[in-house]
Amino acid sequence: MTAPKDPLVVFLPSGKRGRFAPGTPVLTAARQLGVDLDSVCGGRGICSRCQITPAFGDFPKHGIHVGTEALSGWNAVEDRYKSKRGLIDGRRLGCQAQITGDVVIDVPPESQVHRQIVRKAASDRVMKMDPVTRLYVVEVEEPDMHEPTGDFERLARALQAQWGVAGLTASLPVLSRLQPVLRKGGWQVSVAVHDDGHGAPVLLDLWPGLHDGGLYGVAVDLGSTTIAAHLCDLVSGAVLASGGIMNPQIRFGEDLMSRVSYGMMNPGGDREMTAVVRAALNDLLADLAGQAGIEARLIFEMVLVCNPVMHHLALGIDPLELGQAPFALATSDALRLSTRDLGLTNTGASARLYVLPCIAGHVGADAAAVALAEAPDRSDDLVLVVDVGTNAEILLGNRDRVLACSSPTGPAFEGAQISAGQRAAPGAIERVEIDPITKVPRFRVIGSDLWSDDPAFAEATAASGITGICGSGIIEAVAEMRMAGLLDASGLIGSAEAAGSGRLIPDGRTHSYVLHDARATGGPLISVTQGDIRAIQLAKSALYAGARLLMDEMGVDQVERVVLAGAFGAHISPKHAMVLGMIPDCPLDKVQSAGNAAGTGARMALHSRAARDEIEATVRKITKVETAIAPKFQEHFVNANALPHATDPFPELRRIVTLPDVGFGAGGGGSDGDGGRRRRRRRG
Amino acid sequence: MTAPKDPLVVFLPSGKRGRFAPGTPVLTAARQLGVDLDSVCGGRGICSRCQITPAFGDFPKHGIHVGTEALSGWNAVEDRYKSKRGLIDGRRLGCQAQITGDVVIDVPPESQVHRQIVRKAASDRVMKMDPVTRLYVVEVEEPDMHEPTGDFERLARALQAQWGVAGLTASLPVLSRLQPVLRKGGWQVSVAVHDDGHGAPVLLDLWPGLHDGGLYGVAVDLGSTTIAAHLCDLVSGAVLASGGIMNPQIRFGEDLMSRVSYGMMNPGGDREMTAVVRAALNDLLADLAGQAGIEARLIFEMVLVCNPVMHHLALGIDPLELGQAPFALATSDALRLSTRDLGLTNTGASARLYVLPCIAGHVGADAAAVALAEAPDRSDDLVLVVDVGTNAEILLGNRDRVLACSSPTGPAFEGAQISAGQRAAPGAIERVEIDPITKVPRFRVIGSDLWSDDPAFAEATAASGITGICGSGIIEAVAEMRMAGLLDASGLIGSAEAAGSGRLIPDGRTHSYVLHDARATGGPLISVTQGDIRAIQLAKSALYAGARLLMDEMGVDQVERVVLAGAFGAHISPKHAMVLGMIPDCPLDKVQSAGNAAGTGARMALHSRAARDEIEATVRKITKVETAIAPKFQEHFVNANALPHATDPFPELRRIVTLPDVGFGAGGGGSDGDGGRRRRRRRG
Repeated sequence: MTAPKDPLVVFLPSGKRGRFAPGTPVLTAARQLGVDLDSVCGGRGICSRCQITPAFGDFPKHGIHVGTEALSGWNAVEDRYKSKRGLIDGRRLGCQAQITGDVVIDVPPESQVHRQIVRKAASDRVMKMDPVTRLYVVEVEEPDMHEPTGDFERLARALQAQWGVAGLTASLPVLSRLQPVLRKGGWQVSVAVHDDGHGAPVLLDLWPGLHDGGLYGVAVDLGSTTIAAHLCDLVSGAVLASGGIMNPQIRFGEDLMSRVSYGMMNPGGDREMTAVVRAALNDLLADLAGQAGIEARLIFEMVLVCNPVMHHLALGIDPLELGQAPFALATSDALRLSTRDLGLTNTGASARLYVLPCIAGHVGADAAAVALAEAPDRSDDLVLVVDVGTNAEILLGNRDRVLACSSPTGPAFEGAQISAGQRAAPGAIERVEIDPITKVPRFRVIGSDLWSDDPAFAEATAASGITGICGSGIIEAVAEMRMAGLLDASGLIGSAEAAGSGRLIPDGRTHSYVLHDARATGGPLISVTQGDIRAIQLAKSALYAGARLLMDEMGVDQVERVVLAGAFGAHISPKHAMVLGMIPDCPLDKVQSAGNAAGTGARMALHSRAARDEIEATVRKITKVETAIAPKFQEHFVNANALPHATDPFPELRRIVTLPDVGFGAGGGGSDGDGGRRRRRRRG
Repeated sequence: MTAPKDPLVVFLPSGKRGRFAPGTPVLTAARQLGVDLDSVCGGRGICSRCQITPAFGDFPKHGIHVGTEALSGWNAVEDRYKSKRGLIDGRRLGCQAQITGDVVIDVPPESQVHRQIVRKAASDRVMKMDPVTRLYVVEVEEPDMHEPTGDFERLARALQAQWGVAGLTASLPVLSRLQPVLRKGGWQVSVAVHDDGHGAPVLLDLWPGLHDGGLYGVAVDLGSTTIAAHLCDLVSGAVLASGGIMNPQIRFGEDLMSRVSYGMMNPGGDREMTAVVRAALNDLLADLAGQAGIEARLIFEMVLVCNPVMHHLALGIDPLELGQAPFALATSDALRLSTRDLGLTNTGASARLYVLPCIAGHVGADAAAVALAEAPDRSDDLVLVVDVGTNAEILLGNRDRVLACSSPTGPAFEGAQISAGQRAAPGAIERVEIDPITKVPRFRVIGSDLWSDDPAFAEATAASGITGICGSGIIEAVAEMRMAGLLDASGLIGSAEAAGSGRLIPDGRTHSYVLHDARATGGPLISVTQGDIRAIQLAKSALYAGARLLMDEMGVDQVERVVLAGAFGAHISPKHAMVLGMIPDCPLDKVQSAGNAAGTGARMALHSRAARDEIEATVRKITKVETAIAPKFQEHFVNANALPHATDPFPELRRIVTLPDVGFGAGGGGSDGDGGRRRRRRRG
């Protein structure tokens, strides 16, 4: 229908172009070309989602000149919109501005439905919006006695005709609100529609006229110890509030297996744990809504990632089977539920809940979220992704193949089971350096950027004090002790005489290294004990053995890249981690931190239908390796007990660090037997 | 793979035939030929659903001779089954008996999935089983650490592989029971699966091994006055228990419009009415289960039919809009819900609820159920179906076209608003005859087959007494009064002098006719008053005017067949109804009673996927006629006030009955104005 002399329109950044009859609205042209230009009101000039910026002047690349007359002048609708709600200079409403000459149209990111969001994490990957729940304004036909279809059926028909969304369904609570809202809106309503491409689209809520109160979603990473959540704008993708609370199930057991045991030993114990975690999630939803200043009933999407035991307990399934071989999940696929199915009331009444798939009985939806965020299946180089927590999830792979396992590291990396250990909070030692000559330490605590040998340190930390050592602090302390020759390869701390430092003090039949002694002023003695070293050795051996098992399965001796994920992973110093032998040898600049990758994966699933489909397909292709039954796990575990390792050479590490060849005992300590006992206990 | 000399098998009653290699089990042969032979256990010899009867001897029609060696001998599985649970003589288990020679196999009705059930109603149509929820026994693969899919995913895969049911889903309550049941059953479980062809199949429940506790469903006809329900076996289709209770909403208003008004006048009134009707439904479910001696949690399917106001109130939707033009339904399509969505707990936790579609704002799911049961759309002759109740639903049509409307008859036909009126219960006068010469009545009461002039009548009715007149009794009384010349065509009762009967007694400025006077012995005086006549006239005029409006729309002056439906409709004497002019003139032998057609339609939908699809398609094709706005309704209403009618000739009636040409007043009475007022009140 367009003539060769019709104006040429070029949309940026897509570069899509076409000729349109003079008078065609920019929004219409964009739709016909498949340009990603948002609109909620369908071109009625009320939602302002279709804002565009015309570019004027010469565009030799596109072969056109754009004159000031390329778009129609401002009309009454645009004038009214601008005077009432404001419009950035140079912007026009795409539904009102008509094409009158050759023009180049820039679609700013906030006018794109499928906009890209740069993630905060160190990796520079972007997240693409592909909304699962969207807002539409529809004009519904009024009821007619001669054609007596229900109001809902006419709404569904209008949604299909005006927006191409077919087969709408609704729950009874929404149906019960339909009639007054349609009439209040004069048969023009905004509808929030969930459509994830699996099953029929669902009407989640509706409002008279244009709803400008927003649509929100919450991505939750339900961990054994903490529950972290982000409340996000479902349109912009922006994180509006973040919060974390302790998992109240801790009182039933610190680690997963003790919670499974609690359920086995106490009839109804699983239901108790389900009730407390659901109550905590519900409170967290209210907290986040309060923080963001939005109404909780505008939360329409929720995504949950967690390990398999948390997964089952949150869903109300007894995790009994996860405590014993063959570690059978009740269900492993992704779940599409309602938040009400979990008794969560602090969301919209019809809000949807998406639970990522589990990879295996020990490798949960949290690992799937890490896989979604870090995409080892799209990596050209062989990448090892380690999500460090009470239970470590480990992924190894590249475009060809991805392997996954989990390994029970225990809570040592989180500061538990360490004599002076504490959670990461102001006052906790987080960085440690030990002078290799003087063997004197200096450190930094959370809350100050100063080292402890800075004259201003005492004043800067007066408020918080120096209270203990957090996870990253203990890793650095142990690694620095090893580099300073205070600790031998077997993990034995030397005496003051043998290792040459007065800071090594006797402690029963072993020795401790004093990091900070404030006893004279009524403060604490913060030292690293032989028991602390053993706890770290057990944890890191489990981690390394898991990674090594995946490398065996992959048939490789080294990896090309390491990603440390998890809230804690982001704070680990790669060099120190490698001195400990937590992770396989690798060039240091190839060790990256991904922050809370599970939380990032949860947010991706919150904002994207495609991400959901992608992770479900990916999980099916991941090869699961069960550490509990792998004959070689025990051998890898024993060899990994040494610092950094009994047999693996760590050439990249030795290129940058020289580890003193000291030895303080007759043997390598009893950690082999210890580890064996510990693992048997934890696995049931 | 079969050779020409392989044995020939003929299945009856289908007549399907084929050759099979010797040793083929009968069940296998039936499946390959598409013969309808049930099996729940999939050929394991445990469910006994596949019982067949081999026929021996010569079958010239099929060209074969069946020798005694045509089937393999009894094997251990059959022997054990027979000794343990018994087997009718001549029966074999189709999964165990193998074909060894030419054979004729009879499949008895109880071994057919899609068996036909003869309905109790007068019409001889049959109901075909096409189960929505079925039981399957499946063998599930055990979990394997090297292929760590969830137990549910392996169950779903087994169901697809073994029964061809793909894409199973389950709710959290069922998922939470999955693991212990699978293990208890040694990985063999019975599953109840709902699959109505709309959306994914749903796992409703599961049991270890073979479940032989049955699957049940309930069909409910939720009326303004009574709630009637049948509890049925979902396999055999048998009705195991029936029950009826009063609709507790009556305390908020006798008729629909007064309940709508209650909701308008009292904030939260609609929620009150929703709560009481849901509680009543829940109690009724428990009662039925108790009556049938089954556990309520084995109820997996429920079907609900009701008028639009009951529909909205049961679903928790304020029926406000149904009280005013244009009578917009919140939703009109069929609804697929869970019983839990209505707060009904006396069913299986995942039990499904199907609500039939509404035809229009005044023509509900109950009318749809009548259309399903009576199928006017499949009728060769033009049939008028009238469901008589507080609100009458009227259908008119044939294969070419079906019309529907409703008409507010009020509760007079149910004995309300009648001076001596009462519900149909023992002691109520249900049949009346008046001698045209002596003008003396005789009658029968519910609970006895004797007429009141029988010498044994007094003794037979001593227990119940003679307490009042029910709906069918008042219809006969008024019609008999008209035939005996005690009542003129305008509906005026004559005086004793004018009509020649001492039973006509003065009653204010009008007269009453004494049916029964027991005042001498302390009993009641049961008479028909002028007010009773007016109430019946209003009711029957509304009914007739509705039917006439449909006839206008259809362009006809007469109908070929009339079906009186409804629990009450079954008791109406066609002749008396026609004398009153309740229904259009029609040969008497063409007036049939369909009993509770709405309840029958509900049962059809309970047992059949095809019936659900059929009524949804039919409803879309029905043309709705809105009586409230039809200009001619008022004219038809006024003309129908006369007995039988002011203008329509009723030739078929006059062929069998001579109506005395009497007249007792100056005009036709004030019913015109009355009716107008009454209708305006009820509709607006």
